[in-house]
Amino acid sequence: MPRKPEILKVTKVAESRLFHVEALDLRFSNGAERRFERLALRGRGAVMVVALDEEMNVQLIREYAAGLHDYVLTLPKGLIDPGEDSLQAANRELQEEVGFGAREMVMLKNLSSAPNYMGHSIDVILARDLYPSKLEGDEPEPLERVPWPLSRLEELILRDDFSEGRAIAALYLARHWLENENC
Amino acid sequence: MPRKPEILKVTKVAESRLFHVEALDLRFSNGAERRFERLALRGRGAVMVVALDEEMNVQLIREYAAGLHDYVLTLPKGLIDPGEDSLQAANRELQEEVGFGAREMVMLKNLSSAPNYMGHSIDVILARDLYPSKLEGDEPEPLERVPWPLSRLEELILRDDFSEGRAIAALYLARHWLENENC
Repeated sequence: MPRKPEILKVTKVAESRLFHVEALDLRFSNGAERRFERLALRGRGAVMVVALDEEMNVQLIREYAAGLHDYVLTLPKGLIDPGEDSLQAANRELQEEVGFGAREMVMLKNLSSAPNYMGHSIDVILARDLYPSKLEGDEPEPLERVPWPLSRLEELILRDDFSEGRAIAALYLARHWLENENC
Repeated sequence: MPRKPEILKVTKVAESRLFHVEALDLRFSNGAERRFERLALRGRGAVMVVALDEEMNVQLIREYAAGLHDYVLTLPKGLIDPGEDSLQAANRELQEEVGFGAREMVMLKNLSSAPNYMGHSIDVILARDLYPSKLEGDEPEPLERVPWPLSRLEELILRDDFSEGRAIAALYLARHWLENENC
């Protein structure tokens, strides 16, 4: 593996409420110099929750996604708040977005989104032993809960309204973890 | 499913060479009004390639990812150039980044990245019947090619340097497609 490029300079090049863009002037180990732009990382990370009920339905939500200007099916997810760890954030998001708490939570994997130009990543958490519990979130409208049998995962990935790469990865990772749980 | 929110106004709020941030003022069907920020979509989309050789090794690359400031294992990928369709872009990226062309290509799925704040998506292409062919890309340094047996996918996803959600989804999608090819 080559030596990491040397960061010659970091420059803030654009900023909005949500996004902070920085330019990295880099010198690669072969001497090549390039300027890369990336979204600067703020905050404490994010979580995505694969919550399974006793019938092995995964709790999907249907929500408005501004990036696509459309409603999509996805997994409950959100940012980690100050003072929370990943499991606490996952349990809070699950209560806000789905209306369940979980007594059992397992960290499956930290997924990156688009590592060439974003440092953002999301912890995928498996949640089981659910119980009804509703917390108020900051959603502009109530989210529709869509329980989906994990055994019908292949049918789900054929749907155009279920397209988020991280959510597809999360469901396959959960299924693989469950298959190996009792090995 | 609720009616899509009405877009009251779109405002450009930040811009750099690579990123264009816009604010959407939205009115939801229940009357709630919110301002969302998203990365505006430019260009013609992107492709990610699952290229399998005759021994059923998937062609991974090791490349520097500026978002993480580290080397990662991932799939060959890149933007669709003017005049190209997805399959043509996939075949070009494969030749630039791995040194193979493909005689057989199949579109598996269009994956979104972070649909709440980005419209970006990537076409996942399965490539087979490979032959040696090298095109010059714009990489600052040669990429390391890492052939990995598809049968050892579970070992790959345990690695911290293989974390890209879309790439994990792409490999599971490819394996599922191959399992069902002769059904």
